Amino acid sequence: MATTITDIAKYINVSPAMVSRVIHNSGYVSKEKRELIEKTLSELNYVPNKVAQGLKSQKTGMIGHILPRAYPNPFWAGLCQSIDEYADECDYQILRLFTYNDPKRELKQIEEMVARKVDGIIFTSASSKENIQRVVDMGIPTVMVERPLDVMGVDKVLIDYVEASYVATKHLLRLNHKNIGYIGVDTSVNVVESERYNGFQRALMEEKITTDNKYIKFCESYSPQYGFHLMEEMILSDFLPSGIFVASDVLAIGVLQALYKHRIRVPDDISIIGYDNSYADILSPPISSVGLPLKEMGEAAINLILERMKSKTTSVKTLTLHASYVERESVKHNTNQEVESDGT
Amino acid sequence: MATTITDIAKYINVSPAMVSRVIHNSGYVSKEKRELIEKTLSELNYVPNKVAQGLKSQKTGMIGHILPRAYPNPFWAGLCQSIDEYADECDYQILRLFTYNDPKRELKQIEEMVARKVDGIIFTSASSKENIQRVVDMGIPTVMVERPLDVMGVDKVLIDYVEASYVATKHLLRLNHKNIGYIGVDTSVNVVESERYNGFQRALMEEKITTDNKYIKFCESYSPQYGFHLMEEMILSDFLPSGIFVASDVLAIGVLQALYKHRIRVPDDISIIGYDNSYADILSPPISSVGLPLKEMGEAAINLILERMKSKTTSVKTLTLHASYVERESVKHNTNQEVESDGT
Repeated sequence: MATTITDIAKYINVSPAMVSRVIHNSGYVSKEKRELIEKTLSELNYVPNKVAQGLKSQKTGMIGHILPRAYPNPFWAGLCQSIDEYADECDYQILRLFTYNDPKRELKQIEEMVARKVDGIIFTSASSKENIQRVVDMGIPTVMVERPLDVMGVDKVLIDYVEASYVATKHLLRLNHKNIGYIGVDTSVNVVESERYNGFQRALMEEKITTDNKYIKFCESYSPQYGFHLMEEMILSDFLPSGIFVASDVLAIGVLQALYKHRIRVPDDISIIGYDNSYADILSPPISSVGLPLKEMGEAAINLILERMKSKTTSVKTLTLHASYVERESVKHNTNQEVESDGT
Repeated sequence: MATTITDIAKYINVSPAMVSRVIHNSGYVSKEKRELIEKTLSELNYVPNKVAQGLKSQKTGMIGHILPRAYPNPFWAGLCQSIDEYADECDYQILRLFTYNDPKRELKQIEEMVARKVDGIIFTSASSKENIQRVVDMGIPTVMVERPLDVMGVDKVLIDYVEASYVATKHLLRLNHKNIGYIGVDTSVNVVESERYNGFQRALMEEKITTDNKYIKFCESYSPQYGFHLMEEMILSDFLPSGIFVASDVLAIGVLQALYKHRIRVPDDISIIGYDNSYADILSPPISSVGLPLKEMGEAAINLILERMKSKTTSVKTLTLHASYVERESVKHNTNQEVESDGT
């Protein structure tokens, strides 16, 4: 076991109280004794017992992070890394627990965090409204990242999703694409999905372009399999747009696999833009994508928790951050003289 | 803040001691009062203070997990998930800290874990020998996963790396590939790398096949860029084998990007087998790869910690687990009548 204050006191024959005074830098200790104690602390690898310290200070230096699951997606990995790095700078540790999208499990994990007296909790992605509300009602500093759920009294770090899709779609339009496809998750699933689609539509409307419905494909959730299936459906229908905005890199994995199977080259035969810049750089070819500001998101989440810990303010903040277009090799200028699609 | 025993006692006008007796199920409390207290505990969302409990029981229910960085690789994500899920079954929490491959930072993270009185520490990948030894010497149950570092008194969960590469290479040989390439990290970097290469060579030697050195390419670390570079070098040299064993899916990302760029089709023009089955299923096409038993690795790591906590045994265990070949779409039977490579 780790060295205790008593061990050290015994070892050099001083009182435990004196050792404690040196550790906490409080009260008088002679220079000579202080030096002896400091040397011994270092030699015996003394590390303060933060469990006991936590009891006294009512601060454990630990922030909880609830997220759906371990990080099969580099987007979550990047967000976790950003949270970890900034927590580290602020001398906090992250206790990260997973819900596996089960509200009961989520509640259990929350109870675990409360029992460990975390100083605050960061929720990311699909958490239950009731569970978050419960944490807020306990007076625990709480922040929600990425999901605009309607919960009272909770700070939020959001992305301007409409703008993100708008920027990607505008890029295709500028490169002379007129028949632009959309592959995404059904807009009824979540506000995040409907905003992605709205940004796409807004860009088209600005240019007074109407897209044939055959170019718009929805699925029920984010998975490569859905991307593959929807892309193959489009290929086999012979309604192939010159460019597609794919509302998630996870879907783009499957989109590229379908294109590869059918020997359709990117960007020679079709331009592709992904979303969230997670898998974009490891695909063949690496695809252009809309990147979220992961570093800023992580920092903002922790800063909101720390601010709420310090001041007992009741005012609630929502911070909206902006995505940016990351150019790679999957988009090219459309040189075809396309006929305006009229469904015939 | 969370509800305390005192809050509950006040709320229903009983003594805190009585509430405590109900919570810990010790000592006499009348049926009527017990029911009232239990109802109130539930209504007021009482959760036990594990910080204080940890102090008493000398067990914090927390296991530390040291790894190089947040999980940019699905292999680490999968291992973390397996550790988390099994920890959850065993009613343990994982405190996961990152070293970013800096031994000083690693030491700081270890001190953090010791200060929080973790019940054990799991090391994965590149940790410093000195740091691990330090933890072992403190008497903290310790296990090393995946890296066969030479540290005294530490339990290990390893993979039979030689066998893993052997199995993949044998598969290519069975499908009539004779000129088989190897792309991997230099064997002097780590025993893990040299064992991967040894397995490859052992399979070739069994069939009395000697491979031209032009088919063997080494780089200094795992990154898609190195994979791309080495593959492109091979393509441009016009020494293209019919099949390649790529000693990591991370390298295979770049290998496939180079092949895509040069319009060489997989598996029509060349067969590819990856290693560690991390990115294999999201590539175009999805590639066959050698998969490690992540679930078993995570479970074994935690079981070794728990066993060491229970018994004060000094005998040290090394558990070697086995990889398996996962078939996908990147390998086909070689129908070319190849000339034995003799370097001309």
